[in-house]
Amino acid sequence: MASLGVHVKRHKVTIVGSGNWGSTISKVIAENTRAYPQLFEEEVQMWVFEEQVTIPKTSRHFDAGSELCITPQPLSLIINRLHENVKYLPGITLPSNVVANPSLPDAVKDSTILIFNLPHQFINRICESLHGKILPYARGISCIKGIEVDESGVTLLSEQIGRKLGIYCGALSGANIASEIAQGKWCETTIAYDPPLMDSRHPTPIGTPHGGSPSASTINLVDPSGEPRKRSARLTPLPADYPPLNHENVRHLFHRPYFHVQMTSDVAGVSLGGALKNIIALAAGWVDGLGWGDNAKSAVMRIGILEMVKFGKTFFGDTVHTSTFTEESCGVADVVTSCMGGRNFRCAKMSIERCMSIDEVERLELNGQKLQGTSTAVEVNLLLRGRGMENDFPLFTAVHNILQGNVKPEQIPELIEPKDS
Amino acid sequence: MASLGVHVKRHKVTIVGSGNWGSTISKVIAENTRAYPQLFEEEVQMWVFEEQVTIPKTSRHFDAGSELCITPQPLSLIINRLHENVKYLPGITLPSNVVANPSLPDAVKDSTILIFNLPHQFINRICESLHGKILPYARGISCIKGIEVDESGVTLLSEQIGRKLGIYCGALSGANIASEIAQGKWCETTIAYDPPLMDSRHPTPIGTPHGGSPSASTINLVDPSGEPRKRSARLTPLPADYPPLNHENVRHLFHRPYFHVQMTSDVAGVSLGGALKNIIALAAGWVDGLGWGDNAKSAVMRIGILEMVKFGKTFFGDTVHTSTFTEESCGVADVVTSCMGGRNFRCAKMSIERCMSIDEVERLELNGQKLQGTSTAVEVNLLLRGRGMENDFPLFTAVHNILQGNVKPEQIPELIEPKDS
Repeated sequence: MASLGVHVKRHKVTIVGSGNWGSTISKVIAENTRAYPQLFEEEVQMWVFEEQVTIPKTSRHFDAGSELCITPQPLSLIINRLHENVKYLPGITLPSNVVANPSLPDAVKDSTILIFNLPHQFINRICESLHGKILPYARGISCIKGIEVDESGVTLLSEQIGRKLGIYCGALSGANIASEIAQGKWCETTIAYDPPLMDSRHPTPIGTPHGGSPSASTINLVDPSGEPRKRSARLTPLPADYPPLNHENVRHLFHRPYFHVQMTSDVAGVSLGGALKNIIALAAGWVDGLGWGDNAKSAVMRIGILEMVKFGKTFFGDTVHTSTFTEESCGVADVVTSCMGGRNFRCAKMSIERCMSIDEVERLELNGQKLQGTSTAVEVNLLLRGRGMENDFPLFTAVHNILQGNVKPEQIPELIEPKDS
Repeated sequence: MASLGVHVKRHKVTIVGSGNWGSTISKVIAENTRAYPQLFEEEVQMWVFEEQVTIPKTSRHFDAGSELCITPQPLSLIINRLHENVKYLPGITLPSNVVANPSLPDAVKDSTILIFNLPHQFINRICESLHGKILPYARGISCIKGIEVDESGVTLLSEQIGRKLGIYCGALSGANIASEIAQGKWCETTIAYDPPLMDSRHPTPIGTPHGGSPSASTINLVDPSGEPRKRSARLTPLPADYPPLNHENVRHLFHRPYFHVQMTSDVAGVSLGGALKNIIALAAGWVDGLGWGDNAKSAVMRIGILEMVKFGKTFFGDTVHTSTFTEESCGVADVVTSCMGGRNFRCAKMSIERCMSIDEVERLELNGQKLQGTSTAVEVNLLLRGRGMENDFPLFTAVHNILQGNVKPEQIPELIEPKDS
């Protein structure tokens, strides 16, 4: 508990985003800022994209006769008055120290910890708005699943946020469903946090980072066709009057009795898990739809996890740890959950049962929402094909070829069959 | 394909056992002895515990008017006439090169490969009957799941067979359901096979074994309270006129397009997986019965797999590989399958849903059969408690304490919560 020692300042925390997942994380965080007053300011800011809402029936405060249920009011106002995000997390009481704030610059003012929890497509716009508004020594954690993949390589969302804002940004990912966590149903998550160690007199990283592995901020992106792409960040050190933001203290901010946190230094591994699992879930859905049973499904998961490891090592080198995929919530557990009942799994399974294309199932079942597995499979294939590596990832390649109509799900075993040793 | 070179002799294979799993494996093996005539004699012997049976309705040969469906006949005779094990694997055609043999000494005569596939409780008796009847240089593979655990330590069934017969015996385990494999539904399995390298002039193992790790036959059993328990086997080398029994050739005997085989050297890891997964499946069943959702279930699996790794390393030292549990079919995939719908999982889930003890559920649902998870949990706890190691295995210990009525399934998260780092 050395890191709990007395410091002049305490960390102020802002959640950037207030949807279902953002509101859930704000509940978790606000419980912990109360539990660790030596480390954190009690009040947690939650930036709310303002909209006019009425209280729905699913809210604890629904009352057909009440004015709030008839006349739309600003969402931030309702959250602060009722301590419930009636639109995105109805039925759940938020701690009273969560303060909804519709002004982004005001919400992040003086915050040393920024937790990003908003849809992928808003990242760029929000980062632009934040520019110059945040503390130069703020630290971020991205709770946004997904990666950006194209022919040129893989970009992590946490990296993207960190680069745009000039701060260090870690990542959280795991087998998590927001509404279950909000209800206090137990699950686990993985947080990757690994800022470079810095000499506080100079605003540049020096030496080796926590955990002994190269820092995500100075990560060596291995380009299989050429030289390592070394990126070095110029970070402003956290002033010494704040408690250090080491693994122990970051864990204190997120860990709850119903939300168990493992800390790691492998930002790339944690981020890849949340994206690549969707490709595996498609294969698991097809296999299940074919009636091949649980053993075939678990074989698909096993092989998928090993392709994730290989993908990580290929594109991020040894900064990626095998164990992130095989032993952490963001790896094996998230794959298992996604292959038991996730959206990609269910749509792939239905596509077999109803003899439809998966695009048709998506259109009929998802009410305008999009499957992530199908687009990730296409993007990953673009990258692999461009480097002549399709055969090194037979499951990812099989999924892409099934989506393209080149092969059938029934061929999965032969497509991924290991050749004679 | 160096190992496919011409040798004077070919391996003769016997399956010791002809139940559901034994008959399924005989089908797999007999297809491969036909596919690799340079390595194996085509005919596969299958020892049958003789009994008088009539053809049931589930058989492909059922005909209400037929004599065979009215008057009992010896099972071996029916198998050899109809190429179907009408009692234990009805509806599946066995290759005609599977020869059922009710005489154990005759079935194993001149066989260089013995595949053990019979209920746990018959091992001792069968090994006694085999004594002096087998080739001194025969090799075994045990397909029997389970381990023997008591206060003094862990004994692998493959070790037990090998020691009693004075031969080397490997192990097969995976996410496998016999009837699905028999129908050609795709799955995977893991085979651990690692006999010591031997100088063929001397019937004692020398040097390092295949794979570079200590051989299972000269395994260092680490006794946490004392000295390593070194066991050294005196094996008779396989004569040079047989094709070598290396990983490549053992894989040829088992691998099929619908039954993918990974080879490993880690006999202890492969054997432990098949037994310890049943403890994990109980916890997953309780959590599912409580309605905590897939994320809680996948968290239980993840933690269980890591306790398996620790158990293996504690009691077998570094001969056990982490990857056997985290990356192979006998580890992660078998855990996942068992936690999705296995018998231990289902009974534990029902015990919550019906507010019954698991023993009651077992009595009502299993028709006299026994849950393996409950007895394994008790045995493992006896071992751990005796060494003061209960706290090192919080999930295994929680399962035992729930079974004993000391704690409730609802307490699982707090019981396994990692302490502050």
